[in-house]
Amino acid sequence: MNAPIVQITHCQEFAAAHRLHAPELSEAENVALFGPCNNLHGHNYRVEVTVAGPVDPVTGMVMNLNDLAEVMRTEIWQKVDHKDLCQDVPFLNGVVTTAENLAVAFWNQIAACQDQLGDSKLVRVRVVESPDNFVDYCGEAQ
Amino acid sequence: MNAPIVQITHCQEFAAAHRLHAPELSEAENVALFGPCNNLHGHNYRVEVTVAGPVDPVTGMVMNLNDLAEVMRTEIWQKVDHKDLCQDVPFLNGVVTTAENLAVAFWNQIAACQDQLGDSKLVRVRVVESPDNFVDYCGEAQ
Amino acid sequence: MNAPIVQITHCQEFAAAHRLHAPELSEAENVALFGPCNNLHGHNYRVEVTVAGPVDPVTGMVMNLNDLAEVMRTEIWQKVDHKDLCQDVPFLNGVVTTAENLAVAFWNQIAACQDQLGDSKLVRVRVVESPDNFVDYCGEAQ
Amino acid sequence: MNAPIVQITHCQEFAAAHRLHAPELSEAENVALFGPCNNLHGHNYRVEVTVAGPVDPVTGMVMNLNDLAEVMRTEIWQKVDHKDLCQDVPFLNGVVTTAENLAVAFWNQIAACQDQLGDSKLVRVRVVESPDNFVDYCGEAQ
Amino acid sequence: MNAPIVQITHCQEFAAAHRLHAPELSEAENVALFGPCNNLHGHNYRVEVTVAGPVDPVTGMVMNLNDLAEVMRTEIWQKVDHKDLCQDVPFLNGVVTTAENLAVAFWNQIAACQDQLGDSKLVRVRVVESPDNFVDYCGEAQ
Amino acid sequence: MNAPIVQITHCQEFAAAHRLHAPELSEAENVALFGPCNNLHGHNYRVEVTVAGPVDPVTGMVMNLNDLAEVMRTEIWQKVDHKDLCQDVPFLNGVVTTAENLAVAFWNQIAACQDQLGDSKLVRVRVVESPDNFVDYCGEAQ
Repeated sequence: MNAPIVQITHCQEFAAAHRLHAPELSEAENVALFGPCNNLHGHNYRVEVTVAGPVDPVTGMVMNLNDLAEVMRTEIWQKVDHKDLCQDVPFLNGVVTTAENLAVAFWNQIAACQDQLGDSKLVRVRVVESPDNFVDYCGEAQ
Repeated sequence: MNAPIVQITHCQEFAAAHRLHAPELSEAENVALFGPCNNLHGHNYRVEVTVAGPVDPVTGMVMNLNDLAEVMRTEIWQKVDHKDLCQDVPFLNGVVTTAENLAVAFWNQIAACQDQLGDSKLVRVRVVESPDNFVDYCGEAQ
Repeated sequence: MNAPIVQITHCQEFAAAHRLHAPELSEAENVALFGPCNNLHGHNYRVEVTVAGPVDPVTGMVMNLNDLAEVMRTEIWQKVDHKDLCQDVPFLNGVVTTAENLAVAFWNQIAACQDQLGDSKLVRVRVVESPDNFVDYCGEAQ
Repeated sequence: MNAPIVQITHCQEFAAAHRLHAPELSEAENVALFGPCNNLHGHNYRVEVTVAGPVDPVTGMVMNLNDLAEVMRTEIWQKVDHKDLCQDVPFLNGVVTTAENLAVAFWNQIAACQDQLGDSKLVRVRVVESPDNFVDYCGEAQ
Repeated sequence: MNAPIVQITHCQEFAAAHRLHAPELSEAENVALFGPCNNLHGHNYRVEVTVAGPVDPVTGMVMNLNDLAEVMRTEIWQKVDHKDLCQDVPFLNGVVTTAENLAVAFWNQIAACQDQLGDSKLVRVRVVESPDNFVDYCGEAQ
Repeated sequence: MNAPIVQITHCQEFAAAHRLHAPELSEAENVALFGPCNNLHGHNYRVEVTVAGPVDPVTGMVMNLNDLAEVMRTEIWQKVDHKDLCQDVPFLNGVVTTAENLAVAFWNQIAACQDQLGDSKLVRVRVVESPDNFVDYCGEAQ
């Protein structure tokens, strides 16, 4: 019998400060481009990490959700919660902290731990920045 | 270095009246088909528009979220908020105002403004009609 | 031993059309006062009804939640769901359908069924008109 | 003119008890694998079923949402609401009641009613087990 | 200068099984009274604990939210999460596990720790059993 | 006939950075007291302002919700959105930016505009700092 392929998603929240500021642009260009987001402000971010894989016929699981939660906690949450994303997070050093770049950076944090994901495969990282804005990264590039 | 492709989604809400009524069907057929939805009623609708594109390495953005919000505000929100979708909205003239048709019509409104979307590409319109019902249109046709 | 007094709340949702229009005011005054709410539009409304009473030591209940739900369904939901509040609802005849007036009218609908509430007492009706606006009526008057 | 293909999603909630216990594993292995989820506990589950199809040009619908809701109510909700998923549900007999296996089982329940789905096609079942955990099954297997 | 009195609320969630069954009633009476809630089922419960007190002029706090969270975690969450409320929770022994009785029992758990609440006073416990049903206990009795 | 007294609530959201730091305490005491909240971080805050008053028999309103929204927008939102609450907000100068102190400060901002509230009376300000923490201020002091 074939094993069904299922996607499982775990979500965690963190509170952080940031501002949008592109070092390659002038102050005036930054203000024009980012508007009030150029000011220091902050969010309750929500991160959703999705992995996919075959369901183990014995355990009924794609992977142990506790293991996924632990990778997210260690590789993302502990490094960004109650932090200034522009100053305090080594893996975001030099990154303009848009939701787009956060999603890519969080993807890279999880992807580097593939050994802890077993047979399942990272397929999506969603970053919800505010109730009306979110981004998705699925590992694609051009 | 390749640029990651990211999807960004912006959401807006509007309050509108509508009824489901198919002009090609009889009154009895309309009642049988649509049930209480054939009565005039209304919803707090939520519209989610998703565009995808490469992340600009300088700005960290797929496109400026303010620009996306402005297109949605001008092309959808201003034309439907606090309106009767069956009477007051020129771009819905003759359209049975199911969530399916709204999603397609909203897609067309945004797609017509591709010049304001820069290099990013419209990939999905979601219309949430009530807490338990929503539809997605991704530009496909058969 | 004394019985604890507990408040229980049940919530139901309905979809309805309405417009704000005060018959004692001119058209121009209505537009000036209500703005776009003077247009026909609609909402997914949420109604929360709260009753309070002593907890029955045998059943552990203030009143049977199914009974409360049934009163709300019969006296409110069936009469307003998928309706135009300004035209189709006898108990709202002549009422300006602001959230304030809806809360008072819904209170009166439930209060008229005190015999179905047992020993518990109606203490609050909340009407949530949109994610950012709600009203509470607790039976007070001046 | 081509018909647009739209996805429609209907959501229902149910309250159920379960525990995670793999019959092929020892008690100690079950405790080690599932941790506190090996204890009897429960959830307010949310099930989202998505079907896709062409929009009927006369009715504006992919399929009648009431029909989709009725299939979900009959084939899933009535069989699992206010039940112990490990004891009371024939179609889950012998299934480890992980969210993954529930999603696959619910998919099979709906897929067996294709005749009630008209021309539309089942494309996704999402099971939301708690605010921070959900799974998706789209009919894939390896 | 007088100190303002502020209410602070912390919320925690837990997943548990229960059934409503009154030992003083017959099986038939239990079925008639509680309906499907007489079956074993479960919920994602949300508990909100509110305390009130003067704002400390130096710290700006009524009490340290971490301390409130710790009391809730120790006295409620650890004892009920991933448990069968009818079998596994000593402080609910012999209690019909209605939301009303849970709210009173949780109040008593927190009230017994007044020494950890400093100068602030327990004023409300809310138990949210499902999206549409919740109860409040404020320490009143008749 | 007496006029019913109704409470109306309007909600707005803002994104801001802050850190908890009491100037009268040493660095070590601040770290011990506030823990990670002593770091610069941020939130999507939600502010709910409630006013109460008699329902006008002609308009059906306690006060015009647009006027309440405008006071909140001018006196709170414009001054705190996309700001660092510890540096950029004159009316928070010298205030430890706990949710408690924010609620009191926001109350004072609105209370100073009583002339724009008509006959209605400010009765509550709620500040929701994160999904699990909120505070209420109702104008009381000791």
